[in-house]
Amino acid sequence: MDQRGDQIGAVRVDQSGRTAAVVARVRRLVHDGTLREGDRLPSTRALAAELGVARGTVVAAFEQLDGEGYIRTRQGAVAVVAASVTVRADDVVRPAHRVPDGAAADRAAPLDARPGLPAVTAIPERDWRGAWRRAADEPLRNTLSDPLGTPVLREQVAASLSLSRGFAPDPSRIVVAAGTSEALSLVAEALRAHLGRAPRIAVEDPGYRTGRRALTSAGADLSPVAVDDDGLDPDALATLERIDAVVVTPTHQYPLGSVMPVARRRRLLDHAARAGVLVVEDDYDSEFRHRGAPVPALAALDTAGSVLHLGGFSKTLDPRLRCAYVVLPRPDGTQGAAAEAVVTARRARGPVVAEPVQAAVAHLVRSGALRRHLGRVRRDYTHRRERIAARAAAEHGLEARALNGGLHTVVTWSGPATGRAVAARTAAAGVLVTALDEYDVTPGRSPAGVVLGYGALTLPELDRALDTLFAAVHAPD
Amino acid sequence: MDQRGDQIGAVRVDQSGRTAAVVARVRRLVHDGTLREGDRLPSTRALAAELGVARGTVVAAFEQLDGEGYIRTRQGAVAVVAASVTVRADDVVRPAHRVPDGAAADRAAPLDARPGLPAVTAIPERDWRGAWRRAADEPLRNTLSDPLGTPVLREQVAASLSLSRGFAPDPSRIVVAAGTSEALSLVAEALRAHLGRAPRIAVEDPGYRTGRRALTSAGADLSPVAVDDDGLDPDALATLERIDAVVVTPTHQYPLGSVMPVARRRRLLDHAARAGVLVVEDDYDSEFRHRGAPVPALAALDTAGSVLHLGGFSKTLDPRLRCAYVVLPRPDGTQGAAAEAVVTARRARGPVVAEPVQAAVAHLVRSGALRRHLGRVRRDYTHRRERIAARAAAEHGLEARALNGGLHTVVTWSGPATGRAVAARTAAAGVLVTALDEYDVTPGRSPAGVVLGYGALTLPELDRALDTLFAAVHAPD
Repeated sequence: MDQRGDQIGAVRVDQSGRTAAVVARVRRLVHDGTLREGDRLPSTRALAAELGVARGTVVAAFEQLDGEGYIRTRQGAVAVVAASVTVRADDVVRPAHRVPDGAAADRAAPLDARPGLPAVTAIPERDWRGAWRRAADEPLRNTLSDPLGTPVLREQVAASLSLSRGFAPDPSRIVVAAGTSEALSLVAEALRAHLGRAPRIAVEDPGYRTGRRALTSAGADLSPVAVDDDGLDPDALATLERIDAVVVTPTHQYPLGSVMPVARRRRLLDHAARAGVLVVEDDYDSEFRHRGAPVPALAALDTAGSVLHLGGFSKTLDPRLRCAYVVLPRPDGTQGAAAEAVVTARRARGPVVAEPVQAAVAHLVRSGALRRHLGRVRRDYTHRRERIAARAAAEHGLEARALNGGLHTVVTWSGPATGRAVAARTAAAGVLVTALDEYDVTPGRSPAGVVLGYGALTLPELDRALDTLFAAVHAPD
Repeated sequence: MDQRGDQIGAVRVDQSGRTAAVVARVRRLVHDGTLREGDRLPSTRALAAELGVARGTVVAAFEQLDGEGYIRTRQGAVAVVAASVTVRADDVVRPAHRVPDGAAADRAAPLDARPGLPAVTAIPERDWRGAWRRAADEPLRNTLSDPLGTPVLREQVAASLSLSRGFAPDPSRIVVAAGTSEALSLVAEALRAHLGRAPRIAVEDPGYRTGRRALTSAGADLSPVAVDDDGLDPDALATLERIDAVVVTPTHQYPLGSVMPVARRRRLLDHAARAGVLVVEDDYDSEFRHRGAPVPALAALDTAGSVLHLGGFSKTLDPRLRCAYVVLPRPDGTQGAAAEAVVTARRARGPVVAEPVQAAVAHLVRSGALRRHLGRVRRDYTHRRERIAARAAAEHGLEARALNGGLHTVVTWSGPATGRAVAARTAAAGVLVTALDEYDVTPGRSPAGVVLGYGALTLPELDRALDTLFAAVHAPD
């Protein structure tokens, strides 16, 4: 939503060589330990005078440094150094705002650069606490919960989808779930109960491991479908017989990052409608598209009623909230009976998201706090993506992929090292990444590579992770 | 925990004819509409002087009336009338503290006397808000949740069980779930995955309908076992072949209310250990035992490692919290592999209870707020049980059962009316109860009767519900 404004800001910074010089100077002072966590920077006015530049140049530099996680700025207050990778353990009094839990307090703890974590700590505490206070202030009531969710959250989700995803579901078609895994588990359970046998569910290969575990545990039989640079191939799906459902990540294929083009989306929907396949659109990370024209959600293109759309608040707010939702296909479409089965399963398994959680999330959406938070972190994520792209481009025989959106990159290389060997080496050096082949259903499907999540890393931490990763790739076997 | 103190209080009140007279007088003034919601009562001192009784008599009467839900008293403040069943809709400005949602605001809304609801609105708002404030004040962290639960909640649950249920599980054997239904669903899913086929699960007949739905939806095949005045009969269970698990409510059979004697508990455990049956002990309502010697939990008697113990906070705090737990059988016992399968299924389905919810609940347990709340509502529930018993005893051909504990009663009668006919009549008169035969697995298992929940009813509302029910039972067909 704030994407355009962010880009203008980035361009403005890039155009100014003086701003870049100020940024580089502060970065260097942090890297060499001259500036340490909590140190106060001069005011923008004083620093501008000292350096003989316009005050606006310093303001722009501070904005950039804030976005990169080096400093924290606040309206009307002096900027302070946010965190340093060079800081010594005995210098640290308490972890800085943006430092992942434990990382500063215990330098021996590994840096977790595995995918899956957003910048939770960037949520303003005032917004967070305010939302919970609102939730706690709701009067206690002697009632049971509606297993489908509270009206207020379902309405807010419906309104958000119509703003950002191009389709406007009726709130009555929205069902809350305790996270994406629970939602996938529920869909598999619903199909099993509805069909009276194990549902046959096609999944992307490589793909979302956690989701596969949830589907299998709930009784589904999985069939892998290879993905290419355009995501899952509907023609490959069509060669599989008697498939009941397919789980896809068309916005940002997980983990490879490909975006499914509109023409392929239509082919997928045509096939699904003809073959009676339920299309489960896992719309994770759609909020963090970075490059390329926006592509409408499958649910927005769906005329037959084949698509069950799945979203949540783990990447936009906090995965510890356990709050997600499914948007059911319409009742009179090709998957109306499957939709009804999901409602039946939800009622059977019972409500799973506490009403105070639903109230707090709804408040963060309605108040605009979520939108503002996303505007801020999108800028941070963009800085991190650009850093990865720039550093990978300078590195021989190495490629960083999946950078069009989302919160992770796939790093591949031309040398002989396997992804697991490289991941083991980085772990030994204190940086956790995930080998790409751990996402494979069919062994050997993926090239040698690792997946690195940058959502929760500051730029200094990202640099450390990349230094470690590049060294591990280039290390002799 | 406060049980003994409550009984002394009740006895003291009963011994005083003067106290009873004051209580009856205030009750009458509320019933005839002289006193209305929000009206201030005289101070205890002034009223004592006016009536010519000792001040302690009035204090005791006010305590009794507070426990019955007629008035609200607070240290150092004048007592006010809490709610009235005779109040007219146009007199009502806002619902009183103890009135169920909507009941006062809209007299056309039916009085919900179906079982399942505790007195949520009796939780002090200060404790409730304080717990959420504590939860919201926990620092934001860039981490994922442990699917098994937070250490602090698991430790508090372990400590509570060792205080109140006679066994001391290691916190590592506790797994959180999003309510009892989700927990039962998880166990069924785990057994299905573990066995590679639909698990055969024995359930009580009549029994917990919601639980049966959760088990069936998750892929279990159910076998009913009749219950008698001592609960589920292990000999009847033993006649069933190849049973994988049995779900029992030994503390307070749901819905009939029988308590399983220790000798039968031991027989059940012997059979389970011999036949390799997982015993799922649903320990709902154990906090609200009213009469009879305490009976140890199955989990406390279990030496073979057959018992999975299931508890939660829906009845002690608020069903809208969606927070429950299972205590796994020990890893080296007869059900060690099933326990491991539950952990695997929990990891597959993912964490389901938001960390702020776990933090708030843990705080309510640790701070003593839950214990204090239970002390207060136990007294209220005891008053309601005594009212039901007294009124049913005065009613010809009618019996109120299941009053040894819990939050509901089973009312049966000798006339020709069916439970469904009576429930339909009370619904037509604005009072919702549940026909007893709705709990039957085998049609015709239960006698004619209805189940009436009194957890969320004030005494005036309970009187209205009983008036309506008795009239419906005696109405000509």
